[in-house]
Amino acid sequence: MGWREGYIAVDWGTTNRRAYLIDGAGRLADSFEDALGLMAVPAGGFEAAAADIRDRLGDRPMLLAGMVGSNRGWREAPYAPCPAGADDLAEAILWIEPGRTGIVPGVCQRGAAGADVMRGEEVQVLGAVARGLVPPDATICHPGTHAKWIVMEDGRIAAFRTMMTGELFALLSAHGILADQLNGEVRADAAFEAGVRDARAGEGILSGLFRIRARHLLGETVGEPASYASGLLIGRDVAAGLKLHRGGPLALVGRPDLCALYAAALAGAGHETTQLDGAEAFLAGMHMLTEML
Amino acid sequence: MGWREGYIAVDWGTTNRRAYLIDGAGRLADSFEDALGLMAVPAGGFEAAAADIRDRLGDRPMLLAGMVGSNRGWREAPYAPCPAGADDLAEAILWIEPGRTGIVPGVCQRGAAGADVMRGEEVQVLGAVARGLVPPDATICHPGTHAKWIVMEDGRIAAFRTMMTGELFALLSAHGILADQLNGEVRADAAFEAGVRDARAGEGILSGLFRIRARHLLGETVGEPASYASGLLIGRDVAAGLKLHRGGPLALVGRPDLCALYAAALAGAGHETTQLDGAEAFLAGMHMLTEML
Repeated sequence: MGWREGYIAVDWGTTNRRAYLIDGAGRLADSFEDALGLMAVPAGGFEAAAADIRDRLGDRPMLLAGMVGSNRGWREAPYAPCPAGADDLAEAILWIEPGRTGIVPGVCQRGAAGADVMRGEEVQVLGAVARGLVPPDATICHPGTHAKWIVMEDGRIAAFRTMMTGELFALLSAHGILADQLNGEVRADAAFEAGVRDARAGEGILSGLFRIRARHLLGETVGEPASYASGLLIGRDVAAGLKLHRGGPLALVGRPDLCALYAAALAGAGHETTQLDGAEAFLAGMHMLTEML
Repeated sequence: MGWREGYIAVDWGTTNRRAYLIDGAGRLADSFEDALGLMAVPAGGFEAAAADIRDRLGDRPMLLAGMVGSNRGWREAPYAPCPAGADDLAEAILWIEPGRTGIVPGVCQRGAAGADVMRGEEVQVLGAVARGLVPPDATICHPGTHAKWIVMEDGRIAAFRTMMTGELFALLSAHGILADQLNGEVRADAAFEAGVRDARAGEGILSGLFRIRARHLLGETVGEPASYASGLLIGRDVAAGLKLHRGGPLALVGRPDLCALYAAALAGAGHETTQLDGAEAFLAGMHMLTEML
């Protein structure tokens, strides 16, 4: 059975996986999400974990993307170098079983632009452009554990930069002196705006984070500390990421809640953005790739 | 028995305590260090923990400083507000038992200069100035888990800024995606210098940290990653801290190994520094205070 009669697309990450069944008309027919991310798959267990997907969604060709192609995943799919377009990804698919089960490679950057890597975001941004949801010369911000700022040129990934923003927030929330203060819900509220504003005014991460602790000890409240910390970190992320931006359209692709926070931070810096759900972009990207097979 | 006949000075922190017996001539007669920091003292256990110090060093008046005076310590000694001199600290000593057992307060900053707090460093920097080891108008950097940049004016603490540099490095070394790469020894080596240089050239913490991971995945080695990460963080710390510096002498007070790293980073930015062991500065500060009692 070929790809034109329908296929399974899997976004397989470190902590969870999302699998989608696409029918012959390109429509989403079924899907599920579970916690069987890389960390939950035992050594040598990917064969069975993939068979389980077919048991649930049907015996179709299957295309996988994300950390499943990393050195901690099923099998390592070498990075496609920047600049990278959809054709580069399609050609470099690592076939577990030719024409039946393949892993989409990530994208890497070397040399003067600085070492960097991505796995999973490339499918989303190239899919968003192919579907016409994002202009082919946009600067795209993809928020997350490791947020990406991606410069598109003629519909290809020309350059990018990763920020450890989400991971740093998670570390601070789970461990260390601020953990007790950062367990609240992050919203684009006044405290978040204050964090963004302080970051834009030059407040650094090292001093700004400790100030959260100092204000607490001195009884100087500034709203929800988790929102402030998020605003400070995202504010610094945006200030650094905008250095890659050359003035074209600016788009956010990813988790809607995170995109909303980045949109607020970017609006504070005078930048209008469009927002696109990463799941929708992912399906667009996987469909684009299957059409090239 | 009065302070002039000898006393015990204790630097009591979160993870350990250092106790010193000073004789009637102001000389160090005995000392010990153990792991009975705040976290190891059970609720209501400070009375016994202090008695244990006298059992080991003699029945003398005892002056305590550091986190023992925090809300997690023996009893909370309210902060002396900035600008703060030795006389302010001496007057605000919290007496557990008048004339016999006292806790030196920390120093706080409020208002436009920004909320900030210290506990322990104030004894060291005021002691260093009183002993003539640091000029009374110096800018002092005190490296550590929460590094302090302290502006002295006429021998008083005029303003200061805390950087979460040491804590952030510890979090990254213990948890998260970089932990496997940051278990090496930090030295002022070529990788450290590269981190400092990148920080000075504008590389931010969020992007610079992820680049350590990317270089590893792409096989682009740059020496010891722990040294590079430390150089990047200290480089950002120094860049932010120097904004408080108004051109006078620049001194480092604290752990000699950390002072050496900061001295290297400051030398890279064209700044000469003097270095003073924090333990020596602590004893100078406690002696200065006992002479005011």
